[in-house]
Amino acid sequence: MMEDAESCFTTSSTASLHNSTREKVIDLDHGDPIMYERFWRQMGDKTTITIPGWQSMSYLSDGSNICWFLEAEFATEVVRLHKVVGNAVTEGRHVVVGTGSSQLILAALYALSSPDAAEPISVVSAVPYYSSYPSMADYQKSGLYQWAGDAENFDKEGPYIELVTSPNNPDGYRRKSMVNRNQGLLIHDLAYYWPQYTPISSPSDHDLTLFTASKTTGHAGMRIGWALVKDKEVAKKMTKFIELNTIGVSKDSQLRAAKVLKAVSESCGEENHKNGESFFKYSYNLMAQRWKQLREVVDAGDMFTIPQFSPAFCTFFGKETEPQPAFVWLKCEGDVEDCETFLRGHKIITRSGTQFGASPKYVRISMLDTDETFIQFIERLSAIQERE
Amino acid sequence: MMEDAESCFTTSSTASLHNSTREKVIDLDHGDPIMYERFWRQMGDKTTITIPGWQSMSYLSDGSNICWFLEAEFATEVVRLHKVVGNAVTEGRHVVVGTGSSQLILAALYALSSPDAAEPISVVSAVPYYSSYPSMADYQKSGLYQWAGDAENFDKEGPYIELVTSPNNPDGYRRKSMVNRNQGLLIHDLAYYWPQYTPISSPSDHDLTLFTASKTTGHAGMRIGWALVKDKEVAKKMTKFIELNTIGVSKDSQLRAAKVLKAVSESCGEENHKNGESFFKYSYNLMAQRWKQLREVVDAGDMFTIPQFSPAFCTFFGKETEPQPAFVWLKCEGDVEDCETFLRGHKIITRSGTQFGASPKYVRISMLDTDETFIQFIERLSAIQERE
Repeated sequence: MMEDAESCFTTSSTASLHNSTREKVIDLDHGDPIMYERFWRQMGDKTTITIPGWQSMSYLSDGSNICWFLEAEFATEVVRLHKVVGNAVTEGRHVVVGTGSSQLILAALYALSSPDAAEPISVVSAVPYYSSYPSMADYQKSGLYQWAGDAENFDKEGPYIELVTSPNNPDGYRRKSMVNRNQGLLIHDLAYYWPQYTPISSPSDHDLTLFTASKTTGHAGMRIGWALVKDKEVAKKMTKFIELNTIGVSKDSQLRAAKVLKAVSESCGEENHKNGESFFKYSYNLMAQRWKQLREVVDAGDMFTIPQFSPAFCTFFGKETEPQPAFVWLKCEGDVEDCETFLRGHKIITRSGTQFGASPKYVRISMLDTDETFIQFIERLSAIQERE
Repeated sequence: MMEDAESCFTTSSTASLHNSTREKVIDLDHGDPIMYERFWRQMGDKTTITIPGWQSMSYLSDGSNICWFLEAEFATEVVRLHKVVGNAVTEGRHVVVGTGSSQLILAALYALSSPDAAEPISVVSAVPYYSSYPSMADYQKSGLYQWAGDAENFDKEGPYIELVTSPNNPDGYRRKSMVNRNQGLLIHDLAYYWPQYTPISSPSDHDLTLFTASKTTGHAGMRIGWALVKDKEVAKKMTKFIELNTIGVSKDSQLRAAKVLKAVSESCGEENHKNGESFFKYSYNLMAQRWKQLREVVDAGDMFTIPQFSPAFCTFFGKETEPQPAFVWLKCEGDVEDCETFLRGHKIITRSGTQFGASPKYVRISMLDTDETFIQFIERLSAIQERE
């Protein structure tokens, strides 16, 4: 899943809080993956891209491809990276590029719904679901599809679309489809199915799978996502959606993404892997360290709890690893009923569980901010436990 | 207006025609502005952009701006270019960047409609209207807005949105709003209001105006458009749309667009202007030459007619100039009822007038293809007139 369309970038309230006292506001509401910047700085010129003024001027990339605006170089690197990581089957799939995976979610809803249906098709996802799904499905008041809430409580007859997010945003657990029925159309949002976040157990092998550069390499500003699509007609309809929506996807960013994905694949080569220069090794270690620090602080008191995960064998690293999600799904124990408000009182901005269809006792907190912010967060959390 | 979402990039039929005989298929259906490539090659390194791997990683550009994903550099160059050209008032306007102006049209429809209205607001445009407007308005089956056809025949009471395209795609004429009524909300699509296409009479001064890099400089592959928006709440809602649709706009392309627009502004400086290096002088001369050649061929027979335009004073060039649109709106005179089929028989691919809400006696033909293709087109047209 991509990131956090809903209400995440309204910074005014944060700014006013910031000015009111000396204690700094720590904003971990949205999931801006700026943690990765340091790695890319260390890489130096390796992923610098140069585009002359006369290049990539046409709308068209490859008229013979179903996705006529897909840059061949980008598609090649997508396939290569999935092979290197082993997290997705690409054989027999069409690659459809999108302006981030948000556009691809909308394209998929469009492609899987029928313009002739008597009523909009229901769109469901299990609680806690990604907070932007409801508004993404409903903001256009589309007659094609409509948000229908929690997949676990969904009992309407007829066709439906289920968004399966695995590992899940916000809680980090691995997921399978919840509505076990015929006539279900599945969209697998695997934005976080990468080795730094979760053990890679086997290549994902679904009808329609979404990934995004934002969460893979941290390049959110490129706005590049991709879909792996089994059915040709679905790939065509998704392409049509993007044609009507934005007439294609930035070529500049596709070329840049190709270069970045290529560098990631190359960094995973045997030698670099051993030298600790692999992108995933770097990011895995960073996440491991953060989750260790977080667990230590949380375990030191009884105010908060966080999810417990079982380790599993990761085929990419060739060893057992533990899930260490991009977000922590934190619960306030005891009397605190509204965890978001409680933490806001301590100048930590998080996203309330209610936005994910869950209890206000939960909040989602980004684990991908800068080292500086993360350390401040850990210290603040520790101070809260001592004070309260 | 941007380009040609509807059915323009399906190349299979073209390919099969191409293989069937020796006469080459000339495809002028879509408006890919590749004519400009030569200018940018001549500019050499001046607009080459270099982006290091660690740059522009965040979603965010400027949290204090209404349009939080707008790159400041890009906004600066937009304002500067409008000042240099004199084609739009930018004072008191919010700049909203979009993934091409197609996304901005959808964002404007979203922003100008009301989620609480009893029925979708009508969207109209005068015939001949841009062929993609109907499908752009209707493909989502939105409950917010709905295509209602020709603005001249529109007589429904209540609020409506009128798309005012000036100069118009397909026919090149200057336009004002057609529905002269209260409760009308106007979107001015001024993609072609640049000196190479039409005399600049005065700075446009509307509530909501759209432009796009595709038609200004020819960089369609960047997918960068911008809106100048008077009302703060409308700018906010448009930003919200883009947030829900694609969570912002490629930063790489915004930075590249900034560099290209800057080069255009600089090329219009006094000295460059005189030396013939101005981008608009170059492109104006090229368009003038093409229209002259076209008129000569059309006037040599009586099979075809094309629009006649009156010259007007252009404040940018400081002299009278004549409109020379990016498309020619060609009419088959005499017995030919279906001009598109007729020309297709001669292996010229055009877009039928029916797609613009007009008679099949008309077709739209791109004037922005390469020199080579344009010359082939002129020769083919000439041959048709001799043969038939």
